[in-house]
Amino acid sequence: MHWQPTKQHHISLHTQIVEWIATRIASGDFPIGMQLPTQRALAMQFNVNRSTITSALDELKARGLLEAYVGRGTFVTASPWHTLLPTPNWQQHINDSIHKPNIDTIQLINDYEPNEQMIRLGTGELAPSLLPRTALQQSLASITLDEKLLNYCEPQGSIALRQAICAHVEKRGIITTPRNILVVSGALQALQLIALGLLQRGSIIFQPSASYLNSIHPFQSAGMYMRTLDDVTTLTSLPHAAQSLYYAMPTLHNPSGYTWTDEERKTYYTVCQKLALPILEDDVYGELSFQPTQPLKAIDTTGHVLYVGSVSKTLSPGLRIGWIIAPEAVITRLADVKMQTDYGSSTLSQQLVTHWLTSGKYDAHVATLKETLHVRAQFLHALLLHHFQDLASWEQSTGGFYIWVRFHEPVIQKSLFLSLLQQNILIHPGYMYELNDFHHIRLSYAYASFDDLTTGIEQLAKAIKRRTY
Amino acid sequence: MHWQPTKQHHISLHTQIVEWIATRIASGDFPIGMQLPTQRALAMQFNVNRSTITSALDELKARGLLEAYVGRGTFVTASPWHTLLPTPNWQQHINDSIHKPNIDTIQLINDYEPNEQMIRLGTGELAPSLLPRTALQQSLASITLDEKLLNYCEPQGSIALRQAICAHVEKRGIITTPRNILVVSGALQALQLIALGLLQRGSIIFQPSASYLNSIHPFQSAGMYMRTLDDVTTLTSLPHAAQSLYYAMPTLHNPSGYTWTDEERKTYYTVCQKLALPILEDDVYGELSFQPTQPLKAIDTTGHVLYVGSVSKTLSPGLRIGWIIAPEAVITRLADVKMQTDYGSSTLSQQLVTHWLTSGKYDAHVATLKETLHVRAQFLHALLLHHFQDLASWEQSTGGFYIWVRFHEPVIQKSLFLSLLQQNILIHPGYMYELNDFHHIRLSYAYASFDDLTTGIEQLAKAIKRRTY
Ligand SMILES: Cc1ncc(COP(=O)(O)O)c(C=O)c1O
Ligand SMILES: Cc1ncc(COP(=O)(O)O)c(C=O)c1O
Repeated sequence: MHWQPTKQHHISLHTQIVEWIATRIASGDFPIGMQLPTQRALAMQFNVNRSTITSALDELKARGLLEAYVGRGTFVTASPWHTLLPTPNWQQHINDSIHKPNIDTIQLINDYEPNEQMIRLGTGELAPSLLPRTALQQSLASITLDEKLLNYCEPQGSIALRQAICAHVEKRGIITTPRNILVVSGALQALQLIALGLLQRGSIIFQPSASYLNSIHPFQSAGMYMRTLDDVTTLTSLPHAAQSLYYAMPTLHNPSGYTWTDEERKTYYTVCQKLALPILEDDVYGELSFQPTQPLKAIDTTGHVLYVGSVSKTLSPGLRIGWIIAPEAVITRLADVKMQTDYGSSTLSQQLVTHWLTSGKYDAHVATLKETLHVRAQFLHALLLHHFQDLASWEQSTGGFYIWVRFHEPVIQKSLFLSLLQQNILIHPGYMYELNDFHHIRLSYAYASFDDLTTGIEQLAKAIKRRTY
Repeated sequence: MHWQPTKQHHISLHTQIVEWIATRIASGDFPIGMQLPTQRALAMQFNVNRSTITSALDELKARGLLEAYVGRGTFVTASPWHTLLPTPNWQQHINDSIHKPNIDTIQLINDYEPNEQMIRLGTGELAPSLLPRTALQQSLASITLDEKLLNYCEPQGSIALRQAICAHVEKRGIITTPRNILVVSGALQALQLIALGLLQRGSIIFQPSASYLNSIHPFQSAGMYMRTLDDVTTLTSLPHAAQSLYYAMPTLHNPSGYTWTDEERKTYYTVCQKLALPILEDDVYGELSFQPTQPLKAIDTTGHVLYVGSVSKTLSPGLRIGWIIAPEAVITRLADVKMQTDYGSSTLSQQLVTHWLTSGKYDAHVATLKETLHVRAQFLHALLLHHFQDLASWEQSTGGFYIWVRFHEPVIQKSLFLSLLQQNILIHPGYMYELNDFHHIRLSYAYASFDDLTTGIEQLAKAIKRRTY
């Protein structure tokens, strides 16, 4: 919904809005049964006064296209042609369907992130200036397209890439073979495939309290349950009759930034092993630790750990390349599910990543990137000290993108999110990662420029201190 | 499982096989509970006599690692370390999980297709020589990487690509806007997203009898039912309380090759509209029709048709780029599910496809491709006349890749598939598309060279005539 009425138009704002909505309804874009956004949200989207919205909606109600139900909102009730031609009830299809919708805040973030005017204070991606665009461009000109790879790919992904990944993860202590690797379209797809290929409805996913997993729904949409488990040693037996899984981010947990000590690694591994509880290790930030760390997978001798990595946080998320490392039977199964899901990942992306991993360009780039991120982390830390020393607490970053700030008061409300959005500032509130957590905010030093960080944090501080939302 | 024992080795074949399987078990690759392939299949894979397999399995049984159950097969029962260290029961995880496995024949095809020695008689891809490798290579060197597109993409896909798709489909009569388009990782993913985002467990997918959809399971794995419906006019009311869908390939149906007449298009559209039964139009071969055709979507004025296209059959499947065209509310919903599934399609692939669509390269390439395919179709037709005139019937191809041959006798058995596989010939038997259809075979003139086609069809004819399987 990025359309906006034009102010200098000879047709009034009111009429432009009425006609636009009526056309959306007539074309089936706004199907019968669809709920319209709130008046406040519409006013924001169209950049007009609330009163203009009210009058436009009134006209549409008078025309019989909309109806408002007290306490429930405004809905599309008819379409200009619906008495003549029956049409699928798309809204009903959507409401009844399987996959959970993203929470509203995340949908808004997804919609507004591409807008270049936004100051993005919490985003999970690198600033364009930290991406090696020129070098990537050069490699495009220099790699020779493999004829075979223009066609459908082998189920597990290109063998050249799997060999390159083998050599790459060995540097962090993981000894494996290409047969134990599945190339996926990013770490997110890895979670999706594991849900569909290894778990059942009713399976339980254990995870620490605040978790990235609460901001997406691969497991919940497949009928699985999420259980908070902050101390794995408190678990003495597994729930009956369901294949469970422990979802862990041992290095640079998202959002908390926490990295397990060597001892914690051993404890978690031993306890999960005793319980025969497989561990899903999400290591997408692992290579960005400022101190050397080892993945849990490096101490796994019994095929207990499903390991997930990706180039999204280091090289380029647009490439959509990640990997799963697991016992061969698991990989064969997940490769079969992937073949039924999307017939493999872009082979163009695969070739480019192979080239970067094998040429040394990747390692050189990551080394520089870590230094840059370290400087940025210190900059954000200084800003936070300046603005929030008395209001909040946080740890200094040890790597990755984020600082997880806890305000003493529950000030990180949805109204703060919306109010900052109106000032073109996007934040990632704690409630995205843990329902009803209004104390935390995930701040990222990876994306915004120093200027934008300074302005953005200043505005955030102002809003919080003056309670302007 | 591409390992084979070495004949000139100082260790016997028997011992090599025993050690290889024992190592697989010890590493967790062959988990406890896993069923081993049949002795016949193992003998084929390892390229050894059946007796060598029997003796190797006997030794492994004696060691307590395998057990054979009469009538059920041979299973992994223990692991060298399993009494010491507990390990996740991966096989149980796999057996209990949600997504259906591919049928064995398709898994074998997926595994063997990358093998260059194979003569591929039925494959759904273009010969490497028909892919514009050199021209693609040149465009890689000439496109300027868009900085924004190195990062995560907008939910619906790059706006430049969506604009290009708009202009492209308009040539075939579809008038739409970028807001009505979702970029996906191939048409297959479109089906997956529609299953998760618009349908519910218990939904019914109507489709013609032999169907591509029976060779994959996006709908069945999500708990939906497939119903054969060859004549839509026989349907007078929809089953109660389930969101249904009619899956259609109006142009160049896979596998039958059939294209609806204009009258059939109108009838199907009108009947489905009366029933408020949405139509999913899979049009991946549409652009390869030797005569001009229009998609069903071109006559859709009420948002009744979910349209799916792809560059896989025309340009390169390795790029993994396709699209859905539908009412905006549907697209917004499917984009949200896609964001939760894989955060968008490779932006590198998106940029390359944008370049091809907007530069005219795509259209020029498809025009030449159609001519080449036409010549190939006639060549295969001539071969079939030569070998099968008395044994089978078929229609001349009017476009796409395939000829759907029906043998008078039920000769296309799995044993034929396996026997030809041993001669390095891969076929696509009819039972992949309709359970218990042993009369049909899907032959493709798009992949194999004229020499390979000649040899392959000759061997096929020999096997069928001599009944050597
Ligand atoms: C913890 C975690 N896992 C997985 C992902 C998904 O990464 P990818 O782009 O590789 O799918 C992210 C990205 O936000 C993440 O933060
Ligand atoms: C009828 C049909 N639909 C969809 C697909 C999938 O195509 P894509 O490579 O675009 O996912 C195929 C490919 O075999 C097909 O034959």
